This record gives sequence, C-alpha cells and structure tokens, in this order.
Amino acid sequence: MPALAQPGVGAGAGVGVGLALHLLLLLPAPCLARAPRFDPTWESLDARPLPAWFDQAKFGIFIHWGVFSVPSFGSEWFWWYWQKEKIQTFVDFMKNNYPPDFKYEDFGPLFTAKFFDANQWADIFQASGAKYVVLTSKHHEGFTLWGSEHSWNWNAVDEGPTRDIVKELEVAIRNRTDLRFGLYYSLFEWFHPLFLDDESSSFQKRQFPVSKMQPELYELVNKYRPEVLWADGDGGAPDRYWNSTGFLAWLYNERHAHVLVCPVRDTVVTNDRWGAGSICKHGGYYTCSDRYNPGHLLPHKWENCMTIDKFSWGYRRNAGIRDYLTIEELVKQLVETVSCGGNLLMNIGPTKDGTISPIFEERLRQMGTWLKVNGEAIYETNTWRSQNDTVTPDVWYTSKPKENLVYAMFLKWPTTGQLFLGQPKATLGSTEM
Amino acid sequence: MPALAQPGVGAGAGVGVGLALHLLLLLPAPCLARAPRFDPTWESLDARPLPAWFDQAKFGIFIHWGVFSVPSFGSEWFWWYWQKEKIQTFVDFMKNNYPPDFKYEDFGPLFTAKFFDANQWADIFQASGAKYVVLTSKHHEGFTLWGSEHSWNWNAVDEGPTRDIVKELEVAIRNRTDLRFGLYYSLFEWFHPLFLDDESSSFQKRQFPVSKMQPELYELVNKYRPEVLWADGDGGAPDRYWNSTGFLAWLYNERHAHVLVCPVRDTVVTNDRWGAGSICKHGGYYTCSDRYNPGHLLPHKWENCMTIDKFSWGYRRNAGIRDYLTIEELVKQLVETVSCGGNLLMNIGPTKDGTISPIFEERLRQMGTWLKVNGEAIYETNTWRSQNDTVTPDVWYTSKPKENLVYAMFLKWPTTGQLFLGQPKATLGSTEM
Amino acid sequence: MPALAQPGVGAGAGVGVGLALHLLLLLPAPCLARAPRFDPTWESLDARPLPAWFDQAKFGIFIHWGVFSVPSFGSEWFWWYWQKEKIQTFVDFMKNNYPPDFKYEDFGPLFTAKFFDANQWADIFQASGAKYVVLTSKHHEGFTLWGSEHSWNWNAVDEGPTRDIVKELEVAIRNRTDLRFGLYYSLFEWFHPLFLDDESSSFQKRQFPVSKMQPELYELVNKYRPEVLWADGDGGAPDRYWNSTGFLAWLYNERHAHVLVCPVRDTVVTNDRWGAGSICKHGGYYTCSDRYNPGHLLPHKWENCMTIDKFSWGYRRNAGIRDYLTIEELVKQLVETVSCGGNLLMNIGPTKDGTISPIFEERLRQMGTWLKVNGEAIYETNTWRSQNDTVTPDVWYTSKPKENLVYAMFLKWPTTGQLFLGQPKATLGSTEM
Amino acid sequence: MPALAQPGVGAGAGVGVGLALHLLLLLPAPCLARAPRFDPTWESLDARPLPAWFDQAKFGIFIHWGVFSVPSFGSEWFWWYWQKEKIQTFVDFMKNNYPPDFKYEDFGPLFTAKFFDANQWADIFQASGAKYVVLTSKHHEGFTLWGSEHSWNWNAVDEGPTRDIVKELEVAIRNRTDLRFGLYYSLFEWFHPLFLDDESSSFQKRQFPVSKMQPELYELVNKYRPEVLWADGDGGAPDRYWNSTGFLAWLYNERHAHVLVCPVRDTVVTNDRWGAGSICKHGGYYTCSDRYNPGHLLPHKWENCMTIDKFSWGYRRNAGIRDYLTIEELVKQLVETVSCGGNLLMNIGPTKDGTISPIFEERLRQMGTWLKVNGEAIYETNTWRSQNDTVTPDVWYTSKPKENLVYAMFLKWPTTGQLFLGQPKATLGSTEM
Repeated sequence: MPALAQPGVGAGAGVGVGLALHLLLLLPAPCLARAPRFDPTWESLDARPLPAWFDQAKFGIFIHWGVFSVPSFGSEWFWWYWQKEKIQTFVDFMKNNYPPDFKYEDFGPLFTAKFFDANQWADIFQASGAKYVVLTSKHHEGFTLWGSEHSWNWNAVDEGPTRDIVKELEVAIRNRTDLRFGLYYSLFEWFHPLFLDDESSSFQKRQFPVSKMQPELYELVNKYRPEVLWADGDGGAPDRYWNSTGFLAWLYNERHAHVLVCPVRDTVVTNDRWGAGSICKHGGYYTCSDRYNPGHLLPHKWENCMTIDKFSWGYRRNAGIRDYLTIEELVKQLVETVSCGGNLLMNIGPTKDGTISPIFEERLRQMGTWLKVNGEAIYETNTWRSQNDTVTPDVWYTSKPKENLVYAMFLKWPTTGQLFLGQPKATLGSTEM
Repeated sequence: MPALAQPGVGAGAGVGVGLALHLLLLLPAPCLARAPRFDPTWESLDARPLPAWFDQAKFGIFIHWGVFSVPSFGSEWFWWYWQKEKIQTFVDFMKNNYPPDFKYEDFGPLFTAKFFDANQWADIFQASGAKYVVLTSKHHEGFTLWGSEHSWNWNAVDEGPTRDIVKELEVAIRNRTDLRFGLYYSLFEWFHPLFLDDESSSFQKRQFPVSKMQPELYELVNKYRPEVLWADGDGGAPDRYWNSTGFLAWLYNERHAHVLVCPVRDTVVTNDRWGAGSICKHGGYYTCSDRYNPGHLLPHKWENCMTIDKFSWGYRRNAGIRDYLTIEELVKQLVETVSCGGNLLMNIGPTKDGTISPIFEERLRQMGTWLKVNGEAIYETNTWRSQNDTVTPDVWYTSKPKENLVYAMFLKWPTTGQLFLGQPKATLGSTEM
Repeated sequence: MPALAQPGVGAGAGVGVGLALHLLLLLPAPCLARAPRFDPTWESLDARPLPAWFDQAKFGIFIHWGVFSVPSFGSEWFWWYWQKEKIQTFVDFMKNNYPPDFKYEDFGPLFTAKFFDANQWADIFQASGAKYVVLTSKHHEGFTLWGSEHSWNWNAVDEGPTRDIVKELEVAIRNRTDLRFGLYYSLFEWFHPLFLDDESSSFQKRQFPVSKMQPELYELVNKYRPEVLWADGDGGAPDRYWNSTGFLAWLYNERHAHVLVCPVRDTVVTNDRWGAGSICKHGGYYTCSDRYNPGHLLPHKWENCMTIDKFSWGYRRNAGIRDYLTIEELVKQLVETVSCGGNLLMNIGPTKDGTISPIFEERLRQMGTWLKVNGEAIYETNTWRSQNDTVTPDVWYTSKPKENLVYAMFLKWPTTGQLFLGQPKATLGSTEM
Repeated sequence: MPALAQPGVGAGAGVGVGLALHLLLLLPAPCLARAPRFDPTWESLDARPLPAWFDQAKFGIFIHWGVFSVPSFGSEWFWWYWQKEKIQTFVDFMKNNYPPDFKYEDFGPLFTAKFFDANQWADIFQASGAKYVVLTSKHHEGFTLWGSEHSWNWNAVDEGPTRDIVKELEVAIRNRTDLRFGLYYSLFEWFHPLFLDDESSSFQKRQFPVSKMQPELYELVNKYRPEVLWADGDGGAPDRYWNSTGFLAWLYNERHAHVLVCPVRDTVVTNDRWGAGSICKHGGYYTCSDRYNPGHLLPHKWENCMTIDKFSWGYRRNAGIRDYLTIEELVKQLVETVSCGGNLLMNIGPTKDGTISPIFEERLRQMGTWLKVNGEAIYETNTWRSQNDTVTPDVWYTSKPKENLVYAMFLKWPTTGQLFLGQPKATLGSTEM
C-alpha cells in the first residue's frame, strides 16, 4: 500500500517523512592510520578510496571567474569563439564595441574585482547549504587567479585585481568549518605558444607541461591545499603528455607543505579529467560530461556539474531572467542527482567587479532555504534501492541505512492533497527496504 | 458576521471573492468634446479633471537611467554626494578607482547602452502588468536621454549611447496598446552654471529656465507626446521662476504637434512638483514625497513612487539580494496603495549597458504573474468605504461599484485555512456596502 | 652705387649696416586723453586708429590648442574632415584606432594638459623675441579653454585639463613686461545645434549669437582683457548676424572691468574677420587670408599669420622634420613681412599634454637668437621707399626715419664676400632715402 | 711648423685637408676561409678577431623602444624608479595621472606603434650616415619586440603593436645595403618572478636563464640574424649563471639558420656585457660604461654609446629643447670617439606611436649632412699617432695609412681664419707620420 505523505512547505518541493526501517549495512572503513603508497599508474591510483567527506557533502558551488568575466558576453569561451572559431556574434561584438587592435589580453586590466569580498562570498555559499566550493584557479585562457610565477603578467596579482584571489577565497572558506575549499585547473591553454608548439609536434614535445602546467599544479597544491582538485581541459593530449599519473601519485602519497593539521593527502578528492580518454574512466570521482545527470545509479561516485545560467558558466551581462534556471529546476537537479548517488556542483559566474549578481545570490539563498528544511534528506544520505517512484512521477528517494531511514522527496505538490508512493513496502513488525 | 474566503493562490497574496452588492454611483463625465481654456494660475489649472485613464491604470513602471548608471554606485545622486556633499564613501570610491582628474562628465562616454533594446524592455513592462512607463528624460545631472539642442554634448545622441533613447522607448511603448508613455524631467540641474548663477541671485535672474529648461520642456512634449509628465527638482526655486503655470496652461490648452489621433492635451497627466511649495498642493496628481504610502484615503488622486532597490533609484552594481524588496513586499505596496486610492509607480534602474538586470526582470514578471491572477481586484477599481480590515490584519479592499463588487486582498496566508473579514456586512435580500 | 656690406653671422641671414640718412617724418599722435565715441557702423569703427604698440611689435606667436590636439592627426580641422567631409584618411584613422562609437567629444577627457606650465611657455615665447601671443580661446570645435558658463561640459575647466587655461596663460604673459596677451575666438562652431538651426533659417534666427557667442565674447574681454582680439570663423553669416559692429563699438568705447591701469579700450587691436565680407575690408588690421604674404606694401596695417608646420595649425604627432619650416624659411617670412609693413604671427601647436614640442621650441629660440642680433632692423621699424633690392635678390629693407636709419637684410650669404645693394642712394653731404 | 688649413664648411666643424704621407702598415688578415672552433672559455672567445666591418663603420644608431615609451616620463627605467626605488617624481606622476590600481603592465596595450613605418625609420637612419642600427629587442622590463614564445602576453605581437617589430625593422634595414642590423638584449628582467627567485638563491637556481633568457637569445639569432648582439643587464649575476661563454661559443661556431649568404657567424660582433665582471674585459668590443668617451687611445676596440637626450635613453614627452644635445655637441662626440679608436652608437627614443620625433630626426639628418661632407675623415679610418692637437684645442686626427692620409678635424671655426696644427710634421721629399 502506498504511503501517504502530508504536503511539505517551501518552493514547491517538500521533504517526505522518514519511514522507520530495519537495515543491514556495511560500515565504511575507519580513517586510514597511515597512508598507503600509490604507484603512478591508473591501476594503483584508481584503487584509492574516495575520502568520505565528499559523498556526504552532496552539494558544492562551482565558480567560473576570470578575464572572460570582463566581456561577460556569450560564454567563458569568449576568446576561443571570437578568435579561433570566429563565430559571427563574437566577432561583431568586438568590432562594434572595441578599437580594431583590441586584444583579449587587453581585457586583463579591466578585470578589477573592485567589490570582491571573499567573506561576503563565503557567507552566501554557506547560506546556500553547499559543503564545498570549487574556484577556477585558471581557465583555458591561462589567466591564473593567483600570482603564478609561471604566468607572469597574466595573473591576478600582476594584473587586474592585483590581489591573490585564490588565497583570499581559501582563507574565507576555511574560516567556515562547514565548507571545504577546492580548485579547478585547466591543464591546457588555448593560445599558449608552448602548448601550440607541443601540439603541432603531436605532443612529442612537452615544453608546456614541463615549464608551465606542472610547476603550477604543484604550486597550487602546496600553497592553497585544495581538498577538491578539479582538472579540466586536456587539449586533446593523453595523460602521458600531462604526466597525470605521476602528479596524482605524488598528491596521494605526500604530506604537502609540511602541514600537520589537515594534510590534503588524506582528504583531497580529484575528478576524472586528466588526459584524453581518462574522463569517466580514471581518477577520483567521475564527471563524465558537463551537466551530467544520468537519472539512474552508477557504480562509481560521480558529480553533476551544471550551471544556473543555462547558456554559460561565466557571467553574461546581457542574460535575461529566462536564461536562469528557477529554484524549482535547481532543486530538481539536486534531488535527482543525490538520489542517483551523485553530488551536485552548481555553478555561478561572478562579475568582473567581484560581485555575485543578485539573481545568483537569490538562487543560492533559495537553495539554502530549501536545504534548511529538507537537508536531512540530502546530506550524508545514501542512495536507496529505488531512485525514484514508480507510481508518482518526480518523487525521488534517499536513505540513511544506519538510522533505518528512507526519504521520499516529491517535486510537485500533490494537488489532491495526498501523495501516493509505490516503492516503500511497509510490513508489520519489521520493515523491508 | 465575518465573511469566509477560500485561500487564493500565488505568491502569498490572494484575491478575495467578489460580494454581490447594490450600489448607486455617479458616472464620470463623457470625453470632453472641446477643450476648456485654462489660465496660467493654479486656481484654474488645479480645476482640470485628471484624465480618467490614470486612475484606472493603478500600476506604472518608473525608470531611472542616466550617466549615474555608469558608476552605478551608491545612488543616482552620485555626482552630488561625491562633489558637493563630499560624502566619504563616494570620495573614496572615486579615489580608489579612477585617475585623479577624472570628472563626472567623463562617465558620459562610458554610458554605452550597447545592449539596449526598447522592445525587450517594453515586453518586460507589459509582462509586469504595468499600464504606464515613466522614463527619466533628464535627471538632476542634466544629461538628456534625447538629443536636446540645448544640452549639446551632454545628451544621449551626442555622447554615450549616440541614440535617441526617449524616441526608441516611446515607439516601443506606443506599439503596445495597453501601455502609455510618460517622461520624468528634472527642472533644475545640480551643476549647470546658469542655474547656479540664477540661484546666487536668489532666482531674480532667470537665465536657466529661459535658455535651457523651458525650451527643453516644450521640445519634449512636442516631440515625444508623453501622457505622464513627471516634473521633479525645483532646486529651491518657486514656480514663478520656472513659469510652471504658464507651461501647464499651454500644455492643457494646446493640441501639440498637430497630431489628430491621441493628442496629449486630453490625456496627459502631470504631477505636483512644479516649484517650491507646489508639491502635494498644486498640479495634477499628488506625489507628496518619495515612497509616499499614507495608509489611508486621500481626497485627491495620488501616486506612490517607490523603488525595488531599497536604497537607490539608479542601478547599483554592488547591491546584494537583500537590498531588493521581495515580491511579497512589492505586492503589499501595490495592494495598500491601490486600496487607499493611489497608483503605484515602481522603479527599476537599468544598467549602463542598457539591460534590465535579471533581479529586476524577475520582480517585474512576478508582479505580472500576480496581476494576471489578481488584476481584477486592482485595475479600474475604486476604493471602498473601508481600506483595510478591522479583524484580520493585512487585508485590503477595493471595489467596482458599477458591478457591485468588493475585493478583499489578503497578504498573509491564513494558517488556519479560514479568513475572517470584519468589514463586509452581508444582509438578507440586499447587501449594504 | 651699390653699398657693400660685410657678411653677418647667424643662421644664414644677417642684418645690414644702418646708413645715416636725413628724414622728415610725422610723429604719431600722443596717447588719447579721452576716448572718442564710436558708432556701431563700419564707417565709424574703421576710422579708429590702430593702437601704436601693434605696429611696433612686428612679431607675435599664435597658439592653436584644443581638443583637436588629442587626435593630433592631419589638422585642427580633424572633426570637420572626419565627420562632415568624411575624408578617407580621417575616417580610416578613426576606424583603425578607436571603438566604433567613439565620438569627437570623447577626446575631451584625453586633453589632459598634464605638463602644461604657462610660465615655461611664456619663457619660451619671450626667448623667441615675440612681442605678443594669441591663444585660441575657442576654435571651431567650440571647446573653450576657459570655463565658459555658456559651454558647460565642453570647456577646459569642466573637462580635460580642468584648469582655466586662458587665465593661466594670461597671468604668465602679463608677468613679462615685453609681452602682450591676445585671444583668438571662433565666432561660429561647426556642429553647435543652435548654429546649425540658425543656419538652416538662412541666419534669420539668431539663437546662437544671442545665447552663446555674444555672452562668451563679452565674458572673454571682461575677464581676460586681451589686447589682441582675433576673430575668426564667420560660418558664412554676415556681420549683422553676429552683431559685430555692436560688439566692437562697445569694445572701443568702454572701460572694461573697471581696471585703471592698462584698460583694454585704448590698447586692444582686432582683426578683420567679423562676418562674411568683412575680411580684408573692415575692422582693425587686415589678415586677408591665412599665410598672407603679399610681397609688396599695403595701405593698411596687416598681419601674416602662418604656421611652422607647413600642413597644420594644430599639433600633428606624426609630422616629420620636413613638414616644418626651417629657421631660414621662417626668418625669410619675418623679413619679407616686416619689410612690407606687416606683422608676423607665427603659429605653434602644443601637444595634448601641454608641452611645446622640442622642434617648435627650437624654432622659437632660433628666431630669438636671430632677433637678438638683428632685432634692431625689425622692431619699431617703418617700411622704406623700397621693400626689397633690385640688384641683389632676397635683400629686404626697413627703416627708422626718426633716426635716419635704413636696414638692409639679406637672406643669402654672398658667396663672393661682397653684397651689392641697388636701392640706397648715397650722396655727398646729405643722404637721400 | 704647424700646418695651415682652410676653414671648412658645415655646422661649425670642418674636415681638414689630407696630407700626403709615407706609411708602412700591416694589412688585416684576409677573410677567414673556414671558421675556427671556439671553446666556451673567455680565453678562447676573447681571441676571436672582431669582424672588420665594425671598425670601418664608426657610426651606429641605438634605439630604445618599449613599453617605457608609453609613460615616456623620466627614463626608460620608469618601472624600476616607480615601483622599486619609489622615487618621488615617479610615484607622484602615477598618482596624479592614473587610477590607483594602474600597473606598469597596463601600459602594454597603449604601446600602439600606430604610425610605425620601418622603411621611414630606415630612410632616416640611412640619411644620418650611420652604418648600423641596434634595437632594444628586450629591455629590462622584459617586453620583447618580437613574438617570443617565452614571453607570452608580454611581447609586441601579443600586445600593443601586435606586430613583429624586430622583423619589420630587420627587413627594412637589410634592404639598404649600407646598413647593418643589430639587436640589444637585456639578460635579466627587473621583475621576472623566476629571476627574482633565482636571485634570492644567490643564483644557485638557474630557472630564469634556462626557461627564458637562453631560449630567447637563440631564437633571436636564428630568426633575425643580428650582426651586432648587444648584451646588457647582468642583474648582478656572473657569466656562469647566464652561460654566456656557452652561448658565444655556439654563436661563433655555428652557421645559423642555414643561410648561405651572409651567415652571422662570420660577421656578428658582440659587446662585453655578458655577466658581472665581464664588462670592459671579455667578449667582443668594449663598452665599459654608458657614454664611455675616454679621450685617449685604447688597446681594444670600443664603442661610445650615448644618447641625444641628455637624461634618458627612452623617449620623454616632456623634454625641452635644452635637454637635447646640439648637432655641434654630437659631432664633437663622433669626432673625439673615432679619433680615439671608438665607434659612436648614438641613441634615439621613438614615441609610443612609432614616430621618431622631429627633433631626433633633425639631429640625425644634421649628422648625415655633416658626414656627407666630412665622412671621408670618419669612415674606414684608422687612428693616427696623435689623437688630438697639442697647439689648437678641439682638433682631432684620423688617418688612412694605406692612402697615406691624415685627417685633422677642427670643431671650432678659427676666428682668425687660420688654423694652426701642432702634430703633423712635414718634411721635404718624404713625410713622416
């Protein structure tokens, strides 16, 4: 007999009541007393268990910020679309608004971040209910948000903000105990001359990783100790070119920066974008594709990275309200993702001034409001035997086996005032999940 | 016995059911067959009946747009606060972000309006349920949004947008039959040298109105035929200095621009800000003060002009979501205002790029959504004998006497599921209002 | 018998020896004890004797400075050539170097004058041997170098330099007793909307002179007391439109600014460009055309205004050395002009930064070096019965009748070491000139 | 008995007549049939004979051009003085004229070179009589005037001119058979993060030369085949750090770029600034110090590099005429230098627009005019047994032993019309030099 639930409150989606259920489950291994040694092979690296915090966190904020936030037009791929693909709208935008010799690099000084306040950001992220934050420390444009020694004059300390953005955000995030700090890093750079030179050698030359990408990646980890390392942008080159396995073996084996408290080694998670062919196959958790939301269980921990602006990860100053997902659509993404075992990494694009535009802030706070009520059914949950209901559409399940709880989340208010659930099976005396 | 109403739907505020009532009422006079003659005296001008459309419209959009939208910091009074009052935050903002010799005038070229699309704006205004739109054709800074001959190099055609903003918006608004076009015009200008010279003569000299303000006002009416003329900024000078009564007599008497269809004379409404001492006392409808919302009936038609951003009429790029009124707060303003006989003129501040930021668009569309359901209780209504309920707080009344209807609007969902109204008096056989 | 002169020294031109001659001459009238009254007719005004200082001065510096000094490309007529005549090189220059919406007005803020030092300029002018300086207080672009109340936001106090350029130069010039201060003023403005409106009425309307040109001209005289008033740019309108005779009658009759010492009335000189048809015919001294150098005596005092840059009055940053006249060519201009009764007004174009470029400074100082040696034959001289020699080319004469002196200036070094003069007639006992 | 020479013509300095003299001299070795092998030791490298063309050329043009040409204030050391030494005038200049966050890097986009025409430059250089041209391919600021792969976004192809300045000038220079092309290259860079890191390791680390300086230097030679390689800026690091001897051995040994005609190996000359301690001691010709002009013979070929602007190598837009050396002073430098066995490398600083300012052009052309008359006494001359005269000051000697010629150049016109020379010894029948 289907269970009946009372209508919940909130923006059109409610938390189902927990049902008392008996459950047998395997406990996760205790925290590792000493670190195992990893070899620089996928076989060895892939065997590393994902640090437990990540699956418990469920919800993170992705931040795409960089020089592309200055034109803030079309996409964070602005440079590529304008100068490589020569897409007409981008070409016209530049022609109509800038001097003929204006270069993408000239946007650098205009990236002022003048209102950037990392604590204000962190407050908003905290209010959103997210448990981790991933910042684009460097996107494909190559501009580093910290003062990389290997990116002279094309980084946020030398140019534009003239501040160490990565450090400011790291500190603000770490000052909030319920948030973890992560970094996105693009391996390749669209127009870096050494990468282009390597590429034209079919990646037989390795000037770019040796003199640019590797030093930067080590520097990032040592200096900012990210607990998520979100690689992206293999540029068509294999992991061999990037020496990804070498780097990950170091990452997993070493205690970085001689920090005793909270060494990254034990808590860092990485994703799967470490070279052509590695995605959805090797590394830490799987991202598979942008906006990945399979709708069913996966045998491996995954993450659905998606963006509130339907059309862009970077800020677009000419976006209209209809370009943004509604809070109902965002909650649906979260619920579906978590029910299928994924984490949601929800993206915002701050402005060149360093503000989170009110519409993004509203969505984040709306999500926080929803999670304040319904977070119990999200955080630290497991998937259940069913992911969604067979009788009522848009009902999704999570569970807490240790506590014998199952959560049914329904995304549409039952107009009849009654909610019928086809999956839970109640029995007298004992309850089977 | 209090009437019982069913909970409505929508964003927390519902339309009450109409009660069948008997009513005797005076019909408004038919459209004037020929124009009466007005003298340039307040006695004569104040006697002009307000064109009927205005009271029926109830809801309009105010737009503050100008060079102040470039710094978009603090307030549309940026120039004044920075250079006249020397308020520290404004002084610091300039010092920290611009070269030492940067002048307010240098913001002019940066006012690009590059994404301005009047039709897109008009679509949004239409979707908001507003019936009229009032644009700042010139704010106290003196920059005219049309190519005023008397404001050379300090207008939107010579500088910045290099477009006739007033005309573009006028055409887009007029193309929508349910919207009327209005213009705000600041009489004085903070820093105009001729005004300052007049002022230091205690307004004995009249160089500024003669060579600047009067030619512009006539030009505005003749060229753009606004149906709302929203004067502001008397600069401490009496209406005599501005020759306001002379202008209004012309406005009310003449057929402008030899247009046969829709001559402004018969439909134009004006407000009450025509010189020191005229506010809330002379002219067309009363505005009395910014954000005027008295909470009780007034004997004269009035308008509550207020702004979605709690702190500024012009765009502020560093505003956070909490600086904006929620849709619930905005609906409350509308309901209270209309119940007390006023119109609501709700303000937005577009960006220097010419976009309506998503948060404003969202509020406008939310209001439209609310009005689509509840507009029957707003548009073309009268006030009722009671404005709000004595038993249940936050219940406001409007009426349609001809149709024997009374509307009760409640702003808070009754948690009990029952709404008690203390004002309606139901009798058997006949119903007294 | 031709006289024999020794070779002089200097940059290729030397002063001839003075010959002792008998001479009878009329002394100039003493300084006028009281001012005569002038009527606003050319008949009356033309009868005013030119103040004596002007003919004695012989050599002045013309300064073309304004917003056109920012593009500093092609000509001070940049705006006209670009936007009105649409000359290809100007159109291309803008297209290749500026954003599409860039307006001429946007050059205003870039006119920084950051290195402008009026005393440094005055030192250079003094070193050049010039006796007066004429600054473009307003060129056809309309930008006033003082804070004209009638040119709000298009003047040097509101925009760009944010300094009263006219005042700074006036003070620096007046602090040097051997220099007089003059002002150039363009009557019309290419693109002023009121002028254009008047023009399209065939100058039946007079909005522009009434509200712009006349108030400015009176203000200029009262505030800066120029001793040369160099009108220009009648815009095709007759003197009636400009009310030139009215203004000049006031100028000649009044004691301005209640200054007792050095009232302008008695010393001010004006030129002949006061309306279509007045040039070379009415007013003070004649300018007839730019670079006017007739090569023979004129019955009326005249001035040869010319410019060191062969192609432009305003600064051109891409000029090469061959675009500038050499000091030999400039001395030739001076010598020919003075010998024929004219004054030389030699023009320089300062940079947008407010510097006099080294090449101009070099020419000015070279002229000063020449005048230091040869000035006796220039300053306070009269013309002679012959202007140049009939035997040896490039020999020019001046005289000082009171002192019975004739000066022969030869512009080419006689390769033979001997100079033959055909005009002086030496007699025994007495010398006939 | 002193010889008597007739006064010459020209700008104050004349060529003395050649005296017929008997002379025995050693011929220079014939062109090397095959290249000797050099070891990477100073002992080996210092033994290389200087290619003969250099001593014959005598006169070259030095060009300091870079991002420092944008502020064009104070010195080409602008960045260092402003941000490292914090010299008040530089700090104030920035504070008074730029926004607070303006960085030196932000000058990059303003370095437009919009009027740069390499052929025009080459014409002027040719007209100056110079035989070689040395361009700052990279100054201490690190901005490369070619599109260095190792200086991404901080080079003239990625930023500012967006042109390969080095290539354009190389082609223009090589198209003129009497001019040779040379390049200045600063080894260190003031603010390069890798150099600073190396420096703080007391140059034990060698990241900067390995990843930046060496790749660039090889690229420069291979791509542009300079015939003068003018190293500068050791940054306090020894030649070991720079691996200068290794580079020079390669330079002298290899045939670069597989070019058959005019391989650089045989013609390239270098200077002596290859590491701390090498100046005036190792390498090719000696420069010893800026503006080196010892006034006596040296046992080793040397060069006097000096600059027309007395105070700066880079362009200064606020320089006055007195800041520039006169042509007389410049000729004196050339004459003294050549008489003492040196070459003169005379510097100009082009503007950010790419123009050679008229005052520089004038000096260059004046020098050319002088050399056209007197070049016989300069080009391809030897020093003589005396460098200057013992009787008459400012008389300097050169000689052409093969032709038995001695040249006496006198810098001051003998006012008596007679020139007495104390050094030449005339004998009957034969003449001893």
